[in-house]
Amino acid sequence: MHHFFRAPDRVIIEALVESALRYKAIPDADATLGLGKTLVQIYLNPSLRTRLSTEVAAKRLGMWVSTLDAGSAWAMEYGDGVRMDTDKAEHIKEGAAVISQYADIIGLRTFAGLKDRTEDAAELGLSAFAKHATVPMVSLESALRHPLQSLTDMITIRERRLSPKPKIVLTWAPHPRALPQAVANSFAEWTLASGYDLTVAAPAGFALDAEFTNGATLTEDQNTALADADFVYAKNWSSTSEYGKIGEGLDDWQVTAEKMALTNNAKFMHCLPVRRNVVVADAVLDGPDSLVIEQAGNRQWAAQAVLRSCLGR
Amino acid sequence: MHHFFRAPDRVIIEALVESALRYKAIPDADATLGLGKTLVQIYLNPSLRTRLSTEVAAKRLGMWVSTLDAGSAWAMEYGDGVRMDTDKAEHIKEGAAVISQYADIIGLRTFAGLKDRTEDAAELGLSAFAKHATVPMVSLESALRHPLQSLTDMITIRERRLSPKPKIVLTWAPHPRALPQAVANSFAEWTLASGYDLTVAAPAGFALDAEFTNGATLTEDQNTALADADFVYAKNWSSTSEYGKIGEGLDDWQVTAEKMALTNNAKFMHCLPVRRNVVVADAVLDGPDSLVIEQAGNRQWAAQAVLRSCLGR
Amino acid sequence: MHHFFRAPDRVIIEALVESALRYKAIPDADATLGLGKTLVQIYLNPSLRTRLSTEVAAKRLGMWVSTLDAGSAWAMEYGDGVRMDTDKAEHIKEGAAVISQYADIIGLRTFAGLKDRTEDAAELGLSAFAKHATVPMVSLESALRHPLQSLTDMITIRERRLSPKPKIVLTWAPHPRALPQAVANSFAEWTLASGYDLTVAAPAGFALDAEFTNGATLTEDQNTALADADFVYAKNWSSTSEYGKIGEGLDDWQVTAEKMALTNNAKFMHCLPVRRNVVVADAVLDGPDSLVIEQAGNRQWAAQAVLRSCLGR
Repeated sequence: MHHFFRAPDRVIIEALVESALRYKAIPDADATLGLGKTLVQIYLNPSLRTRLSTEVAAKRLGMWVSTLDAGSAWAMEYGDGVRMDTDKAEHIKEGAAVISQYADIIGLRTFAGLKDRTEDAAELGLSAFAKHATVPMVSLESALRHPLQSLTDMITIRERRLSPKPKIVLTWAPHPRALPQAVANSFAEWTLASGYDLTVAAPAGFALDAEFTNGATLTEDQNTALADADFVYAKNWSSTSEYGKIGEGLDDWQVTAEKMALTNNAKFMHCLPVRRNVVVADAVLDGPDSLVIEQAGNRQWAAQAVLRSCLGR
Repeated sequence: MHHFFRAPDRVIIEALVESALRYKAIPDADATLGLGKTLVQIYLNPSLRTRLSTEVAAKRLGMWVSTLDAGSAWAMEYGDGVRMDTDKAEHIKEGAAVISQYADIIGLRTFAGLKDRTEDAAELGLSAFAKHATVPMVSLESALRHPLQSLTDMITIRERRLSPKPKIVLTWAPHPRALPQAVANSFAEWTLASGYDLTVAAPAGFALDAEFTNGATLTEDQNTALADADFVYAKNWSSTSEYGKIGEGLDDWQVTAEKMALTNNAKFMHCLPVRRNVVVADAVLDGPDSLVIEQAGNRQWAAQAVLRSCLGR
Repeated sequence: MHHFFRAPDRVIIEALVESALRYKAIPDADATLGLGKTLVQIYLNPSLRTRLSTEVAAKRLGMWVSTLDAGSAWAMEYGDGVRMDTDKAEHIKEGAAVISQYADIIGLRTFAGLKDRTEDAAELGLSAFAKHATVPMVSLESALRHPLQSLTDMITIRERRLSPKPKIVLTWAPHPRALPQAVANSFAEWTLASGYDLTVAAPAGFALDAEFTNGATLTEDQNTALADADFVYAKNWSSTSEYGKIGEGLDDWQVTAEKMALTNNAKFMHCLPVRRNVVVADAVLDGPDSLVIEQAGNRQWAAQAVLRSCLGR
């Protein structure tokens, strides 16, 4: 069984990118591949882009889609041997096994709690579900990773790169709320697995786990990082040293036109939604080098390629 | 690009009514017209009739439907140049442009806030979205209008009128909560655009904006209005002079059997849901001249005709 | 018109079981039976299994499915002649009649309030809706019954029984929250209608209404009940004598391996979700005689058989 949870190796990434670009050219190329098959999407956290793009992708393959917004209504127990007399009504053992009987592919979204690093690192929501599921699963974002977003980013870079090994900069950016590290972790993981040249710029206290950035150039100096960049990927994430804290006094990490001028006419990327004039200045986001809308558009082709792969083709 | 936000001119209204009546006679007449196309419905406010009737209508055209109940989860920023450090996570610029990539038609419902008349009149929710959308949009009710309801009403009047130019009375009615003016505005707009004879009866302080009632007979005397009426359309709306306030001491505006006796055997209409024995007496609603259930039934044919038109046929 | 609200007679039950087992063998046997027909599912209370299994079942018959999570958003008035000036925005008369126009089958879920026994016994949510609906309705669980679950249970017993008339024990079990009697009522009703030998074991104060258990052996001694059992169906329900109260000091009613040892190698059944080590011990639930996952899997075939029957085949 084949789950889609993290970056595969470079050959597989490239095959997925090719598959996605084929769907972008011919959306209905496999319109009957999934006939009679059901995708069950479970959102323990809300979603707009992921939900719509995955739903459209599944339908383009002929699949049925059932979507559960299971937020607060579906508190699941993960522990073994627990006496279930609290607020958790269902054990993941039953939950995953039951849904597996109604679904041919299960998509699951769950976020990091940002309170307990060890708990988040265990990715219980996803891993416990997968342990008891009997069909392929697709991560719709987990505590540590957002692989559908990262595949989308690889598709976008592949379409827009001017050389086989562009310089890519992932830069931390300010944000008024505490966000997970998932998008940033995953982007680093996929970029490095793809063999690209990655620099990660983040303030002191915001270094991503080495598991994800091993092989990247790391710096706390944003300006130095931006020099000669071909792609600038901005993203906020909460502190890793003071786990889950918001960064204070770091407004000058906003990506502005002046900063983009340091680059090699870099393209600007972001996963959306984005806080205008906090993460990035209007002039950059609305400028000719912003790829954010086409990135979001590529979400559907990424999902279509992944679902095809889960269908065993 | 063709949006469905307000009353078109009379020729177009009549064509839409014809198209809807054709679907009522032959629901599956265009069962493959929308194959491979997606309707994304976004409900910033809840809905029962609009949601179900539009969903069924789209499916009858072969379309896929994705429905987002985006109420509190999706607070969007509309302002230009704003520093987005509040609770609004996404700018309408990105939101509209992104969803346009997953949808072939976008439906959007948003209500008047009933706090700031100028803000409501700007219909920001709909107009800002439309400014950045790149596919046709359908209003599923906006701050000022509810055009799918009004087209439904025109279909119902067309089926039930005994002469080409019936006397139609739109009468204000009591209600325990503050409601928008959208249905009433829109009904007046469509009725007048259709060339019908319209009288609007409302208490002092509840006059609709002249933009919608220009050409109608206006009165504060409900009984006079009802004389010789062929159709009585009851609807509550909140005050326009003390913007958004509920009417007090106006219980005698309820539509009763005695009042219906003043008319020319008029048919009774209401958009539903309706407060029994507040807006209208049981005897009227359950009587042989009530059209409210068939009005609601016509919602699906109205939606089907509008979606067909947005698909460019 | 044909509603699915309660146990039919034995011949019909057996036909539904046969129909379900045929779908289990050949899921797509009637893939076009419901083409162009719509199932509207209304959940006034949340659901996981019922929602997904019914949705998949309807799609396998070629139907369209629209699902409304109508919980708090849709407070309906049931009373006749009421002046609707409270929080209830719509009368069931209009609600049911309107949805009937968009749907070919209506599914409705509503729970017992567990505050007023008489009100719950009237099953207003379901019966008032049915009174005004003009299409077949399927109960997705009501105040007193859960017939789709019970049909599933009959399918499972039919597949797993070793003799035509096995001894079946329905035993009360502990639970930290107050639950309705619906699953237990319905299981007793269907088991007895099927001609099986049923024993119901429950503590003092928890006797089910005789309407459901007439013909069963009743006891307050769980151990005696379990002797020679072929199937043990565990379920919590709240008190019937102190209506809606939780049982206290009854932890020893948990179904354990020791208790299962009293039986005739009985199979263990539960409708899920289940509180591990409160209702039943891990050793039983994870053991080879537990049928809970296959029970849940049979939900889709039960729903498919019922929908087929509502479609008039």
